[in-house]
Amino acid sequence: MLANTPAPPYYAVIFSSTRTGYDEGYAATAARMVELAQQQPGFLGVESAREDVGITVSYWTSEEAIRAWHENAEHQLAQREGYRMWYKSFRLRVAKVERAYDFERP
Amino acid sequence: MLANTPAPPYYAVIFSSTRTGYDEGYAATAARMVELAQQQPGFLGVESAREDVGITVSYWTSEEAIRAWHENAEHQLAQREGYRMWYKSFRLRVAKVERAYDFERP
Repeated sequence: MLANTPAPPYYAVIFSSTRTGYDEGYAATAARMVELAQQQPGFLGVESAREDVGITVSYWTSEEAIRAWHENAEHQLAQREGYRMWYKSFRLRVAKVERAYDFERP
Repeated sequence: MLANTPAPPYYAVIFSSTRTGYDEGYAATAARMVELAQQQPGFLGVESAREDVGITVSYWTSEEAIRAWHENAEHQLAQREGYRMWYKSFRLRVAKVERAYDFERP
C-alpha cells in the first residue's frame, strides 16, 4: 500500500485532482494505468487515495522514465479521456525526492 | 481543495501513512496541524486524502521553512502522538518541485 522506494534521490509525480460527476470508464482506466505504469522502465511504486480530492503519487528513477511514461500511447489515450470527461481540475507536479524517512510500527 | 501553488521551484512534503485502529484525538489533531501549518512562514498549501492509505502533501517555499515546521513545538508533540498511537506505518518524503502543470475545466 505504501511504496517501498529506494534511498533518494528519485522522482515523484504528484497528481492531485477533482473529478467531474462522469464515471463511465474511469475506474477501469485508472486501474489499467496503474498496471501499465508498473510495467514501465524506471517505475518504483505508487500510492493513491481519494476523498474530495484524489492524490496519486508515482515514483520513478529519473525524469527520462517519467517522460517515457507520459508519452506511452495507451497512457496518452487515457490522458485525453481524462481531459475530455473525468477531471474537473488537476495539478501535476514533478518533484525530485531529496530525502525520505520511513516508520514501521514494530 | 487543490493547492494553488506558485510557479516552481518550491518544495513538497509527501506524507503517506497507514493508521492503527486507535482514533482517539487523531481527527482533531490532524485538523489542528493543518491550521497551524497554514500559519507558518513559507507555507504554500496542502492537499490531503485517505482511503486504505492516507496521503497529505504540503507545499513550502524552502527547506528552511520545512525544517522550522518540523521543529514547531506543538507539531513535535503531535508527531510523538503519531508514533505512539496513530500510525501503523508512514513514509515522509521531501521533494523539490521542478515543474508543474494545471488543468481547470472551462
